[in-house]
Amino acid sequence: MKYGVVAFPSKKLQDLANSYRKRYDPHYSLITPHMTLKGVFEASDTEIEVLSNSIRNVVQRHKPFTLHATGVSSFAPTTNAIYFKVDKTEALINLHEDLHKESLGLKAEHTFVPHITIAQKMSSGEHDDIYAQLKMAGLNHDETIDRLHLLYQLEDGYWTVYETFRLTGAEN
Amino acid sequence: MKYGVVAFPSKKLQDLANSYRKRYDPHYSLITPHMTLKGVFEASDTEIEVLSNSIRNVVQRHKPFTLHATGVSSFAPTTNAIYFKVDKTEALINLHEDLHKESLGLKAEHTFVPHITIAQKMSSGEHDDIYAQLKMAGLNHDETIDRLHLLYQLEDGYWTVYETFRLTGAEN
Repeated sequence: MKYGVVAFPSKKLQDLANSYRKRYDPHYSLITPHMTLKGVFEASDTEIEVLSNSIRNVVQRHKPFTLHATGVSSFAPTTNAIYFKVDKTEALINLHEDLHKESLGLKAEHTFVPHITIAQKMSSGEHDDIYAQLKMAGLNHDETIDRLHLLYQLEDGYWTVYETFRLTGAEN
Repeated sequence: MKYGVVAFPSKKLQDLANSYRKRYDPHYSLITPHMTLKGVFEASDTEIEVLSNSIRNVVQRHKPFTLHATGVSSFAPTTNAIYFKVDKTEALINLHEDLHKESLGLKAEHTFVPHITIAQKMSSGEHDDIYAQLKMAGLNHDETIDRLHLLYQLEDGYWTVYETFRLTGAEN
């Protein structure tokens, strides 16, 4: 089964992201707006119980962090995806690193760029038009994230939450 | 904000439910297949922290329960909704009752009929056709539910999980 670990931002930021996603992101209905902390990985029903415990242990050691959305950016030309850029703080880097340590089985595939996707799978022409528009809108929003979620994917692509982990620790 | 408490069944049962929902349920993309334990209620950001703690206390007292899906049924003529019927066990009745006690603020609006909706918002003609088909398919499936989820609804109707509660107690 496919799993991932994400933070869901507040309803306010999710509503804002969805106002773009409903037009520009074909994954709009598969998952609500999120910031990925551990990208998609495969695990069996038995493996996930062990992994889930390890993830809980990691998350519980860390304290709630500030999600600071600072504007709109794009992964083009690597991929035509536009996102809310999230400040890459030391707290986020440490949490992301801890979620990719050996006991958690998998190295991060890409450099960590904290983000909330709002548009993707566009042609280059569409991308450039939309990106120009969205950049003008601007964004400067702070909020506290105090929990992460472990999700699994259904056959038709929809994501279901399996478990919530609270950031209850002292580590940054 | 709107909240609800649900159990998500296993991927296997969710995939089966979605094979019907994608054709017959306009809420298909708003939430993955679920059994509602506490129907939609309104709460503010401050109220929900208190409510969430009360819900956790209730859920933690109860032990994991068996979800036994026994077939396909319909709420017609009350409403044209077709669902996987779930055995109304004593464990489920007690859990549902405890989730509607005074400290949790709200009485249940309807008699509790444990179910997983697979089709809704049809005309009576459509309902009768589809119901006849689905009833023939049959269903007899057992699984253990060991957690509930507290969800909130975004402006565009999509549901996000706020918290997971494990059924870790001794009560039936």
